[in-house]
Amino acid sequence: MADAAAVLFSRHLKFDAANPDWPDRDRFVLSNGHASMLLYALLHLTGYEDMTLEQLRNFRQWGAITAGHPEYGHAKGVETTTGPLGQGLATAVGMALAERRLAAEFGADIVDHHTYVFLGDGCLQEGIGQEAISLAGHLGLGKLIVLYDDNAITIDGPTSVSFSEDVPARFRACGWHVQSCDGHDGRALDAAIAAAKAETGKPSLIAMKTVIGFGSPNKAGTYAVHGAPLGPEEAAATKAALGWTSAPFEIPAELLAEWRRIGARGAEVRKDWQARLAAHPARDEFLRRLSGELPKGYDAALAEARAALFAAPKKAATRKASQMALEALTAAVPEMIGGSADLTGSNLTRVKAVDSQFTREAPGRYIGYGVREFGMAAAMNGLSLHGGFIPYGGTFLVFSDYCRNAIRLSALMGVGTIYVMTHDSIGLGEDGPTHQPIEHLASLRAIPGLTVLRPADTVETLEAWDIAIRNRKRPTLLALSRQDVPQLRLEASDENLTAKGAYIIRRFKADRDVTLIATGTEVALAIEAAQALEAEGYGVAVVSMPAWDLFDAQPQAYRDEVLGTAPRIAIEAAGKFGWTRYVASEADVIGMPGFGASAPAERLYQEFGITKAAIIARAKALVD
Amino acid sequence: MADAAAVLFSRHLKFDAANPDWPDRDRFVLSNGHASMLLYALLHLTGYEDMTLEQLRNFRQWGAITAGHPEYGHAKGVETTTGPLGQGLATAVGMALAERRLAAEFGADIVDHHTYVFLGDGCLQEGIGQEAISLAGHLGLGKLIVLYDDNAITIDGPTSVSFSEDVPARFRACGWHVQSCDGHDGRALDAAIAAAKAETGKPSLIAMKTVIGFGSPNKAGTYAVHGAPLGPEEAAATKAALGWTSAPFEIPAELLAEWRRIGARGAEVRKDWQARLAAHPARDEFLRRLSGELPKGYDAALAEARAALFAAPKKAATRKASQMALEALTAAVPEMIGGSADLTGSNLTRVKAVDSQFTREAPGRYIGYGVREFGMAAAMNGLSLHGGFIPYGGTFLVFSDYCRNAIRLSALMGVGTIYVMTHDSIGLGEDGPTHQPIEHLASLRAIPGLTVLRPADTVETLEAWDIAIRNRKRPTLLALSRQDVPQLRLEASDENLTAKGAYIIRRFKADRDVTLIATGTEVALAIEAAQALEAEGYGVAVVSMPAWDLFDAQPQAYRDEVLGTAPRIAIEAAGKFGWTRYVASEADVIGMPGFGASAPAERLYQEFGITKAAIIARAKALVD
Repeated sequence: MADAAAVLFSRHLKFDAANPDWPDRDRFVLSNGHASMLLYALLHLTGYEDMTLEQLRNFRQWGAITAGHPEYGHAKGVETTTGPLGQGLATAVGMALAERRLAAEFGADIVDHHTYVFLGDGCLQEGIGQEAISLAGHLGLGKLIVLYDDNAITIDGPTSVSFSEDVPARFRACGWHVQSCDGHDGRALDAAIAAAKAETGKPSLIAMKTVIGFGSPNKAGTYAVHGAPLGPEEAAATKAALGWTSAPFEIPAELLAEWRRIGARGAEVRKDWQARLAAHPARDEFLRRLSGELPKGYDAALAEARAALFAAPKKAATRKASQMALEALTAAVPEMIGGSADLTGSNLTRVKAVDSQFTREAPGRYIGYGVREFGMAAAMNGLSLHGGFIPYGGTFLVFSDYCRNAIRLSALMGVGTIYVMTHDSIGLGEDGPTHQPIEHLASLRAIPGLTVLRPADTVETLEAWDIAIRNRKRPTLLALSRQDVPQLRLEASDENLTAKGAYIIRRFKADRDVTLIATGTEVALAIEAAQALEAEGYGVAVVSMPAWDLFDAQPQAYRDEVLGTAPRIAIEAAGKFGWTRYVASEADVIGMPGFGASAPAERLYQEFGITKAAIIARAKALVD
Repeated sequence: MADAAAVLFSRHLKFDAANPDWPDRDRFVLSNGHASMLLYALLHLTGYEDMTLEQLRNFRQWGAITAGHPEYGHAKGVETTTGPLGQGLATAVGMALAERRLAAEFGADIVDHHTYVFLGDGCLQEGIGQEAISLAGHLGLGKLIVLYDDNAITIDGPTSVSFSEDVPARFRACGWHVQSCDGHDGRALDAAIAAAKAETGKPSLIAMKTVIGFGSPNKAGTYAVHGAPLGPEEAAATKAALGWTSAPFEIPAELLAEWRRIGARGAEVRKDWQARLAAHPARDEFLRRLSGELPKGYDAALAEARAALFAAPKKAATRKASQMALEALTAAVPEMIGGSADLTGSNLTRVKAVDSQFTREAPGRYIGYGVREFGMAAAMNGLSLHGGFIPYGGTFLVFSDYCRNAIRLSALMGVGTIYVMTHDSIGLGEDGPTHQPIEHLASLRAIPGLTVLRPADTVETLEAWDIAIRNRKRPTLLALSRQDVPQLRLEASDENLTAKGAYIIRRFKADRDVTLIATGTEVALAIEAAQALEAEGYGVAVVSMPAWDLFDAQPQAYRDEVLGTAPRIAIEAAGKFGWTRYVASEADVIGMPGFGASAPAERLYQEFGITKAAIIARAKALVD
């Protein structure tokens, strides 16, 4: 794809290598991330300061910014982490959504850029690719331009082993503007990109017929060059065939100068943009939005919402509590942009302030992602990466499975995407085991850098949202219930106790015989059990533990105080895996022994033994 | 879709309600599993013995076989668990693959059936849907027939909110035979299904325009009937509009008799089939294949492979050891059918006995699934469910994320799909953090009913394969290394120690001061550390723990003996989450503190502190 890259960078891509963070730059996403060296080479040639020749030499070495796959946050000019196939494209859809909405909010004089994607067969074979293609076509993202490297080769051999579809026809079926061209013909590429830019109502595909390993006399067009180096001999033969006479890592001066001119091509455009921004009436708000700083009204809105809960405590499902929090906070935070993977009425993610659908005609604040959890998650990462937005999106917790690798990439990249995952346990009842999360909380807690919050009531849910909204460099996942819970936090306070990860929510008698640790909907159950135990003379502390990672980050003294030295029991309507971090053995976990079942929630809790009686019995067994 | 179901069941579907397990029945998959009651009603009407009226009355209640979504193993006639959208279709692709291959092996006189799928928009929005469509079209699975309920409604409202593509054109682009018809016109449906059956070279789509909630005077065609009952008033109005006068759960006798005739329609065909089978030269082998019993030669092949390893110990990556095991075992087990999600050369899943590509011309024993992990996993479930096959398929462990919910369904259904997941740690090196599994082992161990095996050397890898192949009612996941490990098991023995989940692989001095527990590639490292500790006078037991679930199933006395009472340290080049099941705290885990990095493997082990020195230091801190 070097030919396409040369044409794109030299004639179309709007960027200024000296100012890689220029907000109105075009975004370039290398979705086939295994071609990372192509991107690194372009960044070096065009003059990105951090991409030195030394970095290129240290390709894939410890400490280098030139990782095996492009890693967001390592080198400037890497707009997103790619490598897990299909996600670059889906993330780019999110960037294009961001551009469209931001332009509608602030005007095309300061927001007007394209999102370009390079991809190969792999991205198109992955299901998430289709989710992205379908959504982009549906929403008519005209500034999204995809260059498809149709080299007919995958790792396992010719694509004909597993892939014979008519890719351009598939894109056309999904409402895309489609062109085909020779991927080694500079003029054809130039014309195709120009035509793609001219088509503003549809996203564009440019299907480029290419030869993998172009120039290699013996390996061009074969899978031998997909994942392996040419080897010294063939590399020499290739250079000879291409008429290249310079030594490795030596760039002829006139070529370098030309590339550096390309890298500076956008400097003037950027200066003009800067001038327009300086004169823009919403300049400060625009810069605030991009900085990630919360608006001035945020603290007051939060305080008001908090006060309302203490003034009139509510029994509510935590998904409902989430809706209440969103009502208050989205009104104060215009960068919040909502959505759901076709479960709006279940996730309760759509509230008044965001009640404007993102359509091809008008980019509103609510995105109907369709039944496309993975595409949604990656698009939210794109919204986060683009800047100017705090994206949140809903699905059922069990379907975190479908988008898991995008959640992982949120964490790996350090972006503040917010996952709203409702129906968080067997408490969802009749839909049965396919819809009841069991291992999901554990498997999400195991992802480094992800804050998983399972709030217990309306107050904790509001606090959880506060944490999520402030988490601009870290993803947050909210696990929320379908079923009602009483409000447990009744004493008015301004302190976000949820942010401590765990805290003693109730004490029964001063001396502790046992500590009950619970999360979410099971905190109320733990309190009931504790009350009964107190009546029998036991001292009990009930710990609400909405977020393990936040708790583990507290000072040792605080953790010791919360956990105490008495025997501990954990209560959570989920698999027991991982709870031995806090309790002596899984025998001390009141949780699920395996998969769930289809029945009303109360019956399930009974049948699976997540009951007050079970807690009491275990407590007595430990204490007596 | 009731109209389509009536036409399909009464005129086309080959089945015999009195013999639901008849191997040559057509398979019917309700991919839009939320319509479960349609299937249950059909099973009752056609006379499946277990589907009583009482079961229908107990829809979604504890203990009923009529779960909220169809659950494999509950009711006869439920061919696969559906509900997680898109997977029914992808699983059906696996069933069609199975039919095609089995027919090639045993002849069309005993294997000749269709696979029918009902699905809605959700299955087509999910990415896995496209993976299945593309693969089925590529392989020309002519006996796969999909009926698409194009009702233009999803939970969030009209599909136009998020879905506007030309579905028939997309299928055509993927090589399908495509028809459209009125989904309430019985004759049109009949003709379309007949035409679909006549087209044998391509899978068929019948796109049916339907009205959701057909007959409901006030709610037909709206999303109000997608996920919610009509309510008593509207239900009454609907019955009136449709001219239905019977009470709830009352079936007019002549209608029931007609349906029962439909249910018995296949009895004669089945008897003829039975007669053909009785006379078939490979009758016994066919029945063995379907029974799941292993072939006679299996034990000898295993013993021979085992003896070869003890005779000439080998240093090898466990993925390479897996290839060696596969060479021996696939030759003895003709039902094993291999494949990879385009990583054959990395997963080392293709060996001599399966070295025949499954193509549209000839269904071989190796399936190129393409870069479609989720589609592969679901298709393997379909191969398992169909019967006659032990499917295994490879990808990188990190991409278990992409197919996680299909792995979950393997476990929930209790089918013996085998996942070959190579590149199982930072030991893969330069590809960097996107490709390095960290949380994956923990998150997979958290899935109930999945056996996760991380073997330490060639012998354990062979034993792991033996476990996987014998696991016919439980899925198995093999986590295998890219990098070499020495053979640690040197003493010839016939005992499968890996099947115990954990065992003492080395003892240094009789008295134990410390126990080192390790898995996979880290067992060798633990042994090195133990040797050094012994030299300094410490007593050390090294435990190899390839499978947590198998170990936990051992008798208490055995577990106590293996784990001992001395302080314990766990060593695994992965996240530490979950290890507190066996060690006192995560401080006693030598593992990864977060995500990996891009560098040569040895450097990564050094930088992340997974070293002999670190083990020794921690051991001394615990003991001294």
